[in-house]
Amino acid sequence: MNRNLEQTAVDTIKMLSVDAIEKAKSGHPGLPTGAMDYAYVVWTKFLRFNPKDPAWPNRDRFVLSAGHGCMLLYSLLHLTGYGVSLEDLKEFRQAGSLTPGHPEFGHTPGVEATTGPLGQGFANGIGIALASKMMAARFNRPGFDLFDYTVYALVSDGDLMEGISHEAASFAGHLGLGNIVYLFDDNRISIGGSTDITCTDDAARRFEAYGWHVQSIDGHDRAAAEKAIASARAVTDRPSIIVCRTHIAKDAPTKHDTPGAHGEPLGAEETAAMKKALGWPAEPAFFVPDGVYDLFRARPKSLEAEHVAWNELLSRYRQAHPELAAELDAMLEGRAPADLADRLLETAGALDADATRGYGGKIMQTVADLMPGLVGGSADLEPSTKTLLKDTTSVATGDFAGRNIHFGIREHGMGGVVNGLAYSGFFIPYGATFMVFSDYMRGSVRVSALSGLRSIWIWTHDSIFLGEDGPTHEPIEHLASLRAMPNLSVIRPADAAETAMAWAAAIQNTDRPTALLLSRQKAPSLDLDDPAMAKGALKGAYVVQDAPGGQSDVIVIATGTEVRFAQDALKMLDGVKARLVSMPSWDLFERQPKEYRDSVLPPGITKRVVVEAASPFGWERYAGADGLMICIDRFGASAPMKDLQKQFGFLPEQIAGRIGEYVRGA
Amino acid sequence: MNRNLEQTAVDTIKMLSVDAIEKAKSGHPGLPTGAMDYAYVVWTKFLRFNPKDPAWPNRDRFVLSAGHGCMLLYSLLHLTGYGVSLEDLKEFRQAGSLTPGHPEFGHTPGVEATTGPLGQGFANGIGIALASKMMAARFNRPGFDLFDYTVYALVSDGDLMEGISHEAASFAGHLGLGNIVYLFDDNRISIGGSTDITCTDDAARRFEAYGWHVQSIDGHDRAAAEKAIASARAVTDRPSIIVCRTHIAKDAPTKHDTPGAHGEPLGAEETAAMKKALGWPAEPAFFVPDGVYDLFRARPKSLEAEHVAWNELLSRYRQAHPELAAELDAMLEGRAPADLADRLLETAGALDADATRGYGGKIMQTVADLMPGLVGGSADLEPSTKTLLKDTTSVATGDFAGRNIHFGIREHGMGGVVNGLAYSGFFIPYGATFMVFSDYMRGSVRVSALSGLRSIWIWTHDSIFLGEDGPTHEPIEHLASLRAMPNLSVIRPADAAETAMAWAAAIQNTDRPTALLLSRQKAPSLDLDDPAMAKGALKGAYVVQDAPGGQSDVIVIATGTEVRFAQDALKMLDGVKARLVSMPSWDLFERQPKEYRDSVLPPGITKRVVVEAASPFGWERYAGADGLMICIDRFGASAPMKDLQKQFGFLPEQIAGRIGEYVRGA
Repeated sequence: MNRNLEQTAVDTIKMLSVDAIEKAKSGHPGLPTGAMDYAYVVWTKFLRFNPKDPAWPNRDRFVLSAGHGCMLLYSLLHLTGYGVSLEDLKEFRQAGSLTPGHPEFGHTPGVEATTGPLGQGFANGIGIALASKMMAARFNRPGFDLFDYTVYALVSDGDLMEGISHEAASFAGHLGLGNIVYLFDDNRISIGGSTDITCTDDAARRFEAYGWHVQSIDGHDRAAAEKAIASARAVTDRPSIIVCRTHIAKDAPTKHDTPGAHGEPLGAEETAAMKKALGWPAEPAFFVPDGVYDLFRARPKSLEAEHVAWNELLSRYRQAHPELAAELDAMLEGRAPADLADRLLETAGALDADATRGYGGKIMQTVADLMPGLVGGSADLEPSTKTLLKDTTSVATGDFAGRNIHFGIREHGMGGVVNGLAYSGFFIPYGATFMVFSDYMRGSVRVSALSGLRSIWIWTHDSIFLGEDGPTHEPIEHLASLRAMPNLSVIRPADAAETAMAWAAAIQNTDRPTALLLSRQKAPSLDLDDPAMAKGALKGAYVVQDAPGGQSDVIVIATGTEVRFAQDALKMLDGVKARLVSMPSWDLFERQPKEYRDSVLPPGITKRVVVEAASPFGWERYAGADGLMICIDRFGASAPMKDLQKQFGFLPEQIAGRIGEYVRGA
Repeated sequence: MNRNLEQTAVDTIKMLSVDAIEKAKSGHPGLPTGAMDYAYVVWTKFLRFNPKDPAWPNRDRFVLSAGHGCMLLYSLLHLTGYGVSLEDLKEFRQAGSLTPGHPEFGHTPGVEATTGPLGQGFANGIGIALASKMMAARFNRPGFDLFDYTVYALVSDGDLMEGISHEAASFAGHLGLGNIVYLFDDNRISIGGSTDITCTDDAARRFEAYGWHVQSIDGHDRAAAEKAIASARAVTDRPSIIVCRTHIAKDAPTKHDTPGAHGEPLGAEETAAMKKALGWPAEPAFFVPDGVYDLFRARPKSLEAEHVAWNELLSRYRQAHPELAAELDAMLEGRAPADLADRLLETAGALDADATRGYGGKIMQTVADLMPGLVGGSADLEPSTKTLLKDTTSVATGDFAGRNIHFGIREHGMGGVVNGLAYSGFFIPYGATFMVFSDYMRGSVRVSALSGLRSIWIWTHDSIFLGEDGPTHEPIEHLASLRAMPNLSVIRPADAAETAMAWAAAIQNTDRPTALLLSRQKAPSLDLDDPAMAKGALKGAYVVQDAPGGQSDVIVIATGTEVRFAQDALKMLDGVKARLVSMPSWDLFERQPKEYRDSVLPPGITKRVVVEAASPFGWERYAGADGLMICIDRFGASAPMKDLQKQFGFLPEQIAGRIGEYVRGA
């Protein structure tokens, strides 16, 4: 290796980043001007990748958890030959460019995870690493080591300060995920100043407490980085973290190691001085010296044979293990059987009366039979959320063959790990907890929506009717706050059949995450003239019953267990001509053609009632500003369900009374 | 001490808890049947309290972070003489009782924090302890040690698994808060089974990494607990945690140490067998043996003199330090000056054009002058959120005199600590970060609303107009999701004057938290006929301008920086008779009388337009289902603001075009 050329290559990463941020007049030069040395080592000596096939299933993954430092990644993607051109770098942070202000999954080739909200990438990497172990356990056979990839991640002090890093690191340490090599960019500078102002953790000791393998190096010593990464790779029974002490804006004469270099362009003067200090040409900007491309592209070139060999191995595997190969293909495609909804409806039809969480727990067994990619678990609430898969085992230290994952009391970490399983490209993962604790994992849920991941969020105990646990556990505003999130499908089924349809919709939502909201309390089935009517739930809303002759004066819209309350109420209302609409999902409904929507909610019937044990916020969309909202606009209370039902006005006779008054204009 | 009586007293805690849960047929017996020994030691040998004055400012605080174990606390409150009767214990988890399913602040005397969502109490305790240090630094003078209280908290494995515990523990360790004694109930059982299934952290090592003083004991050895707590108290430069190894359902013959005992009643048979094993009378339930009350009440009785002495000390302090005493009284009362709004409006009037975050940063200096209880900081975003108070210092290790707090990159921890500062009863605390990261702290925000705390959440970068940072940083659904939360006041001001009113409203919101949503980009002042019109913002919405003669055909409602966009748009619309309404706060508006609301939004004008760079979700309430929503129903993008303004249709000419079409019915 030509020593000078290597240094030149490292400086190229740095200066491309500086120039791009300078041109954009916006960005974070700190990370790319401090992390370039060990990043160079990862990308030229360890990472297994093929820029021509960014989806290579057994590629190693590099996750930039510190997403604000994305120019480091974009520079590397460009230099190593991904589809990111020098022109793209010049368009950093501009409208429509391939190089947005933080990395976006699905937008830029080679970006493995959407990062920027700190700590998400840290947890995603652990999910992606777990996926490698689970795929190996399920598919590798003697002579066929199909899956053995490693996850490298660059994590910053911000990532480590975030609570999600604790949850995910503890989880990874517990499972002994040996295919993790995290590089902690210990630059000790954050926006607010030196990290000493806020944090004096002994990071090494902390990660030892989680059971990680820990090393500390000078992050600018590339030989030390190479040795440490090799050591980390050699430790296969524990995750590894390497504390890399770095200095931001290295070689910048005045901004070296200063907070000013963290998140603002260095400025023309400082950039010029930095180039001078490095012996770098002042012009042109975005300069890539001779030989640098060859150096960066030598590794992917040398890996091409490995890529070919892997594909050949897969071909031989199809011959040797046709059933397994079929299962693998099914997972990679992730396609739902055409008759999924019918089969789940059949399952639902055979169930005894239960809560929708109970129905969900049984229906998901059928889903698991049909969709080999379905894996998941809960945040220590398996018995309460009913989310343990049968006929399989639980993932445990050294044993990754099962499909159940015990996430521990770590909702946010669960969110990040579930998203990581989805990012891997293999799984349809689910994560479960109480609905009120969706708040704890909202950061991850948002990223799942933004990245279009197929994560399934199962949130049970979906209303005040959970009862005795009281207001800290009772969702009120959550339905509205989840419905408001773009690209998140939110479904709250009423009974067994609707729960089956909710699961079918979740599997059919291939380009977005789904939230399944399930009840703690019993949910007797709706009275339907024809059980097949429940398939209307796939369209988000459907008519459960209509006034005789179809001439209704009022439409009663309800969701979840409240649909049955409303149905019981309407039985008490002689003389009121009402249509009852079950509306488990706004977003599924809003994806229907106008004709269908108008057929369910005819614009001519302007009297509308909503029955939902949650905030009325947003329901004016369907009920109008003058509609009757039988909802809850305050926090809940601790009492047995029946008492709460009365206190909050959800007994069928109370509902009937209010509808009657409303229709009569009282 | 009579050894037998002490054991009897401990068993009374345990059996009252078991009986109450049994009677309620619901609850978590695990914690109270494992933690009673060291809890007894805290309450009878260390805690400084007076049940007759639960608000005694210098009392020690006991926080039950593991709120599901609340029967332990209710039993202790009853036995030590708080206003919780035996009848109240019999009403555990029933409608309207003093003993709800999780502890609720402001509801039950002696409950210092609303807990149940795990980890919140852990962080609250740290805020309450920080408040002690800050009060001491500000008010203690030679001979007047007014403030020196200690915070004891019972924390569970669930609390420690949650990420917020990492954030808050790291923060407390950094600041060296020596007045913290946390007792970790290491019972190794969670709902899902043994904690070994999910967690193998070395908790002691972890807390050492944070700089805490750590001890480990047998949690059933009361002498060891007494010694350890005394040692913890003696360490004054670091927080302390004592790992108490306990066994849940101790003395229950079959459910001892089992997950089944964690969260379900033990059952009649097991309860009877447990009583038999303890030599406890089978009947009556809720039995308190002779001498037990005396034993528990001996300590508060002995502390009465200390309580009297403290009040006398305060009286002498008023004489010796009248100015400080006046400041202290102002903080305890927390009353805003009658002319607050006018004074803030005056400050605003003198400001140069800036972003609303910039206005906010300047206006809050005046607020700080007027309200000595105002303290706070940001999650490593002081320069971006403009939230550093001037003329004061920053809280730092060993120096708690300042009013600025550097929370680090720990949004959720910040939320919990800010709430703790509010729970202390002294401060009006604020916590700041980017609006999109309100997601990271939503768990704490919800508790602030549920507890009616006076926490102020400052969230800047309140729309896609933050620009280059892109969709990971751009709030879309957050406005709706925050407006949907009960008891949270949400205010998004348009300019300097409205920002002043937003701050005035925040201070006047004495029974609820406030969210201030502020812009990154410049917010030129609205054109108002009279600057005093901006005081309409205090009512949530007001008319900015009307069609000549007051006969408008359409009402344009806007918030934040979009009000000015709309005003500029209307200037381009000849012939359209429009009223422009600025609506910085839905909840303030909804608290106004109907007459006022109808005067701002006359029901007769049904054509409505909303201009807000966020999800339209919920706006049908004011715009009707057929209103024109100039909003954003997708995720944002990374580009300079001007480009995004055009891309998303928020240039004044674009807004004008759409309003014109809408009014003309195109």
